[in-house]
Amino acid sequence: MTHYQRAPELHVSEWLNTPEPITLAQLKGEVVVLHAFQMLCPTCVSHGLPQAQALHKLFADEKVNILGLHTVFEHHQVMDKAALKVFISEYRLSFPIGIDTPSTQGVIPKTMQEYMLRGTPSIIVIDKQGQIRLSHFGHIPDLALGKIVGQLVAEPFETDKHTSPSKDTDIFKPQEERAEKGCDQTGCSI
Amino acid sequence: MTHYQRAPELHVSEWLNTPEPITLAQLKGEVVVLHAFQMLCPTCVSHGLPQAQALHKLFADEKVNILGLHTVFEHHQVMDKAALKVFISEYRLSFPIGIDTPSTQGVIPKTMQEYMLRGTPSIIVIDKQGQIRLSHFGHIPDLALGKIVGQLVAEPFETDKHTSPSKDTDIFKPQEERAEKGCDQTGCSI
Amino acid sequence: MTHYQRAPELHVSEWLNTPEPITLAQLKGEVVVLHAFQMLCPTCVSHGLPQAQALHKLFADEKVNILGLHTVFEHHQVMDKAALKVFISEYRLSFPIGIDTPSTQGVIPKTMQEYMLRGTPSIIVIDKQGQIRLSHFGHIPDLALGKIVGQLVAEPFETDKHTSPSKDTDIFKPQEERAEKGCDQTGCSI
Amino acid sequence: MTHYQRAPELHVSEWLNTPEPITLAQLKGEVVVLHAFQMLCPTCVSHGLPQAQALHKLFADEKVNILGLHTVFEHHQVMDKAALKVFISEYRLSFPIGIDTPSTQGVIPKTMQEYMLRGTPSIIVIDKQGQIRLSHFGHIPDLALGKIVGQLVAEPFETDKHTSPSKDTDIFKPQEERAEKGCDQTGCSI
Repeated sequence: MTHYQRAPELHVSEWLNTPEPITLAQLKGEVVVLHAFQMLCPTCVSHGLPQAQALHKLFADEKVNILGLHTVFEHHQVMDKAALKVFISEYRLSFPIGIDTPSTQGVIPKTMQEYMLRGTPSIIVIDKQGQIRLSHFGHIPDLALGKIVGQLVAEPFETDKHTSPSKDTDIFKPQEERAEKGCDQTGCSI
Repeated sequence: MTHYQRAPELHVSEWLNTPEPITLAQLKGEVVVLHAFQMLCPTCVSHGLPQAQALHKLFADEKVNILGLHTVFEHHQVMDKAALKVFISEYRLSFPIGIDTPSTQGVIPKTMQEYMLRGTPSIIVIDKQGQIRLSHFGHIPDLALGKIVGQLVAEPFETDKHTSPSKDTDIFKPQEERAEKGCDQTGCSI
Repeated sequence: MTHYQRAPELHVSEWLNTPEPITLAQLKGEVVVLHAFQMLCPTCVSHGLPQAQALHKLFADEKVNILGLHTVFEHHQVMDKAALKVFISEYRLSFPIGIDTPSTQGVIPKTMQEYMLRGTPSIIVIDKQGQIRLSHFGHIPDLALGKIVGQLVAEPFETDKHTSPSKDTDIFKPQEERAEKGCDQTGCSI
Repeated sequence: MTHYQRAPELHVSEWLNTPEPITLAQLKGEVVVLHAFQMLCPTCVSHGLPQAQALHKLFADEKVNILGLHTVFEHHQVMDKAALKVFISEYRLSFPIGIDTPSTQGVIPKTMQEYMLRGTPSIIVIDKQGQIRLSHFGHIPDLALGKIVGQLVAEPFETDKHTSPSKDTDIFKPQEERAEKGCDQTGCSI
């Protein structure tokens, strides 16, 4: 039996594109796709965000929640809330986007830390039980993303299933390891 | 309760890329994706076949069968078996491909007739019970195709489920109706 | 005989990616390609700037100067110099980029005003005589841009040619007129 | 002074898409772009031919001739004239296309031999003097192709210029040498 890691609760300082704050707890029983990005990360802009927007539209009538997470870990002053709001408007993003809460220690924000993300874009897919079924740094093909979200939507919601905080999470490995910090075609690394 | 149409058996005169002939009957309990194409149909070549090949690779370890179907309804003499074999080799297609049996009446081959396809490329997705869940003419986005195949893989195989030969099939509608025969960006129409 | 409009001198408050300020006057005898953009304009990011970067590389050994011009006409406070510097670094742009001088009257910066640009991205191609040979708002295909720059490079530099400040400029017309301000697939309009 | 190789005359057994046969001799004073392809070569279909068609449209009003050359060097029986005619119709190619004359010795047709082409797609650009200015195997970016054709159009036609049959032809080198015969992303090699 595979044990999946439980998805930690989000630490969001402010939500945009949604009237009410969102918690993972309240989305139990639904699939959640978390898209971690930075507004000045080239691969996020060219691939990740258009993909998230298309996913949001494709699953509009189903119990699937596409959530953006602005996980700024560099150049904080030029990617603040005011800049993000303009960015969201110019790029016509319509799904809820949370601003990851800055850490009191270090440059990496809180949710990004707890999910142990390696950079942006990262996509995290969470099942109806609140378990992490995919955590992927960099580009993921549309066909593969559609597949996993489709599978999780079709899975039954087992309310009595107990999940353990195991680290046996089934995680896609990026094809090429990168040694250095910075942005390339894969994305921006911590 | 939605009633889906039962997928008619394939009429294939010869199979390529597979040691043994394939029937839908023997694939009961598995998902089948049927890709109907013509080797000289531009949209098949640019979109449909690369997508089918990617799907074949993505679901390699799962109970999903990607089957090509060469449904020639025009220019039969230059899209014969010899030409198709060269085409398959040059384009490095590795999934099984069946040649749709010519009809004794009219230009449209037998399987294409029974599935009432409108042209090429067409994609038909069949669930574990042997029911048609999608029949789509023209291009379909990767995200949407991945979604439906993912969902059907995750669905249970209910051996005792009775399906009726209803016509309530849930079918994607092509975005633009086309009045004329011939090939355009959507595909080649009957 | 066609009369082309003389290219007005640039009004740049600060240059990035170049040790010395650049003037059109000093580039007489060389071809200049001016790429007007805003860092949060989606079409600039997806098409215009990658094209400008590719052009810069293609003509590296020839008398062709690719110059970026940051013509901010909206959301000035989140597209300031600090943000632009991060943007240039993350997107690895290596050609000289000037910041268009803000106007003392109105939101449209000075050079943008004098060139009567309609929005971003806009591309302006200037010949060896300092005449505007193309001023285009929105996306222009690579083939068409390569063609005109190639032609102007091959044209002789006639030092004694007198150009008149005519308005008969040969200007590509955007394919679709747009009525409203804002950003769409063509670009961001004034 | 650079010496360019004189372009050998074409050996075409039959022309399609043109009422009269075409010779290079009669196109002296104009630029010629020769696109050598095979109808079942994947890179020709995905890149080379759409690029040739776009070039044909872009230079429609100028002294530039885009000529296709069907240089079949493998699988001759399934890429005969009848098949090519269907292919041209389905892909809506509108520029003149010549069938390279089969050789009496070996599989490589005559013009392909004389131009010493390495495979398909190959693009040959010939200036107004009838000199080969570019001979490139594989994909060439739109920007680079637009540039060279634009330059040659702008060059003067010097009727008295004597060209020598030198081999100093300035030829793009394919980025990666390929050892084996067959088709890959670059194209199909001899």
